Amino acid sequence: MKNIQIAKAKRLRSTPYTSRIEKQGLKSYTIYNHMLLPAGFEGTLEETYYHLKEHVQVWDVAAERQVEISGEDAAKLVQLMTCRDLSKSKDGRCYYCPIIDDNAGLINDPVVLRINKNKWWLSIADSDVILFAKGLAIGKNYKVNIIEPNVDIMAIQGPKSFALMEKVFGKKITDLKFFGFDYFEFKGGKHLIARSGWSKQGGYEVYVEDTKSGLELYDYLFEIGKEFNTKPGCPHLIERIESALLSYGNDFDLNDNPLECGFDKYVNLENDIEFLGKEKLKEIKSKGISKKLMGIKINLNDINLSQAIEIRINSNRVGELRSAVFSPTFNQVIGIVMIDKPYFELDTEVELTINNEIKSGILCNIPFV
Amino acid sequence: MKNIQIAKAKRLRSTPYTSRIEKQGLKSYTIYNHMLLPAGFEGTLEETYYHLKEHVQVWDVAAERQVEISGEDAAKLVQLMTCRDLSKSKDGRCYYCPIIDDNAGLINDPVVLRINKNKWWLSIADSDVILFAKGLAIGKNYKVNIIEPNVDIMAIQGPKSFALMEKVFGKKITDLKFFGFDYFEFKGGKHLIARSGWSKQGGYEVYVEDTKSGLELYDYLFEIGKEFNTKPGCPHLIERIESALLSYGNDFDLNDNPLECGFDKYVNLENDIEFLGKEKLKEIKSKGISKKLMGIKINLNDINLSQAIEIRINSNRVGELRSAVFSPTFNQVIGIVMIDKPYFELDTEVELTINNEIKSGILCNIPFV
Repeated sequence: MKNIQIAKAKRLRSTPYTSRIEKQGLKSYTIYNHMLLPAGFEGTLEETYYHLKEHVQVWDVAAERQVEISGEDAAKLVQLMTCRDLSKSKDGRCYYCPIIDDNAGLINDPVVLRINKNKWWLSIADSDVILFAKGLAIGKNYKVNIIEPNVDIMAIQGPKSFALMEKVFGKKITDLKFFGFDYFEFKGGKHLIARSGWSKQGGYEVYVEDTKSGLELYDYLFEIGKEFNTKPGCPHLIERIESALLSYGNDFDLNDNPLECGFDKYVNLENDIEFLGKEKLKEIKSKGISKKLMGIKINLNDINLSQAIEIRINSNRVGELRSAVFSPTFNQVIGIVMIDKPYFELDTEVELTINNEIKSGILCNIPFV
Repeated sequence: MKNIQIAKAKRLRSTPYTSRIEKQGLKSYTIYNHMLLPAGFEGTLEETYYHLKEHVQVWDVAAERQVEISGEDAAKLVQLMTCRDLSKSKDGRCYYCPIIDDNAGLINDPVVLRINKNKWWLSIADSDVILFAKGLAIGKNYKVNIIEPNVDIMAIQGPKSFALMEKVFGKKITDLKFFGFDYFEFKGGKHLIARSGWSKQGGYEVYVEDTKSGLELYDYLFEIGKEFNTKPGCPHLIERIESALLSYGNDFDLNDNPLECGFDKYVNLENDIEFLGKEKLKEIKSKGISKKLMGIKINLNDINLSQAIEIRINSNRVGELRSAVFSPTFNQVIGIVMIDKPYFELDTEVELTINNEIKSGILCNIPFV
């Protein structure tokens, strides 16, 4: 794939950490929620992968923007947007919530933070959820206030993240349960910190509202983190695909529904909560899905995927490859595929054309590890 | 500014023309509506600027996505979203329409194509208008169908675009009035072509629905366009700023209203049409705006702006620089600024810090040319 540079502009928003990461060996950007998101640092993709799995990295994930919904109808609006039952949700907890439209098409898959019953943050994937929420609230005449607050997340990810964060915030931070959050102080700044993140290697996300204190924390983590081999990093393609951390826009979008994406446990159809697309989901569930996200393994040792690749059986299109990477764990290319009924069976052999050569692949379950 | 490459993925959608422009000397991309938009080709910025002003360029502007709103309530929904009176709009015409929320904050500034009373295309700037329209339609229970159709615009821009397009489509195409559109055939494909585009140099936009025919047209334009010095190109920073073709996300966003941006002639408050933010706009109009978009001229011969730069008078913040470029026409840097009341007066001298040096600038009207 040809190396093409990114043309910066105000519209592709910088983050408070941008000038720092550019001095720390940044090689590439992606754009996410109209913002710069680091996509690669010095070192090979495999080197940074093993580093993330063995040590600790600090990530500029400010592009993971927040949609703040507050006011007396806030809980009602958040519930209207997601098929996950939030009626028993608790303050101080995070909830992974597919957001869907009235046709059950996926609009986003945020982690929803319940700050309190009348104040929620949706920590969003790459689409303008704020516009959907505004449209709904205006149309329904709900009493809510919807804004994008000044929150710039820094993530601390990897197995040594616990030791590193304990060194900064004390024993208390290791008491946080997965998807729990609480407030912690650093040099006069107060930060919402969640045990969460865009990797399966463990870690924290610091929801920085106090930029000055956040930048001091960023620098301090590297300063005191030498003993843990702390490095800058970013969401990692190999780790993401092996763990099947699905990515909105890559693995699924508005043309897919939650049941096709394996989000069944976040689809609550049995009680009387009100959300968009509920009838449609009931209908899909009774009829059965017509396509499904799965894994694929391909005997190849390199791939650079920049758009979906058609998947075939006996020359007929049966689906598409949506994400892929060479996995050092499996010593071959692995990927995420959307496969049509009735072909979404384990161990099905399929073919696809990569760099003008026909390759065969085997369908498998996700996650890979 | 450090050169950093873009990390491609399916999420940053390719266009039908992507493989072609990458063989035609593409140097940089931006991302626009989750899609690759070319940002620079071989040659200096000044060389491509003069080429656009003197000859003709073919642009891959597929990232200018369409939101199609159809159905019996389509006209009502489109009108609800814009402060421009569309009650006398006509089929086959384009309308520049600020889209605002209930607080008069700008959500987008599409060119709206009225295909017929029950079918409209919003040719959008960089935000997910489809989600706002869906939210409103669901909340209001409107009878509409809202989709992003498969339309990938190719623009033909520059003074020789008329001769080039006449050579392909015959005399009939030169009869199109500015912001008019009609259907034209090419090798069996039917294309909606508008006299419009993201430059002030004149030209057309081909709304390609038939991809195969569109790609043939793309190649054919270069094949027969040699006599007009036809080159690949893209929206041009110098040309855009000189002409003050404002850019959503750069020059204005949700925190700005149409009156602050000089869109007064597209704000129709005098009749009984219903749209969001109408009361708010009346209030703003009666009180007067509190900030205003203007031009600035700065004695500098180079600038690379990647985020807003604070503008000061006597060390006090009075606004910000949002877009800027070195203009060969004025032999200095020109830019777009948002200036607070009461400082938004012509010829006001302001200061700003660029590359750690304090520079002075003079406020002026836009467009510059």
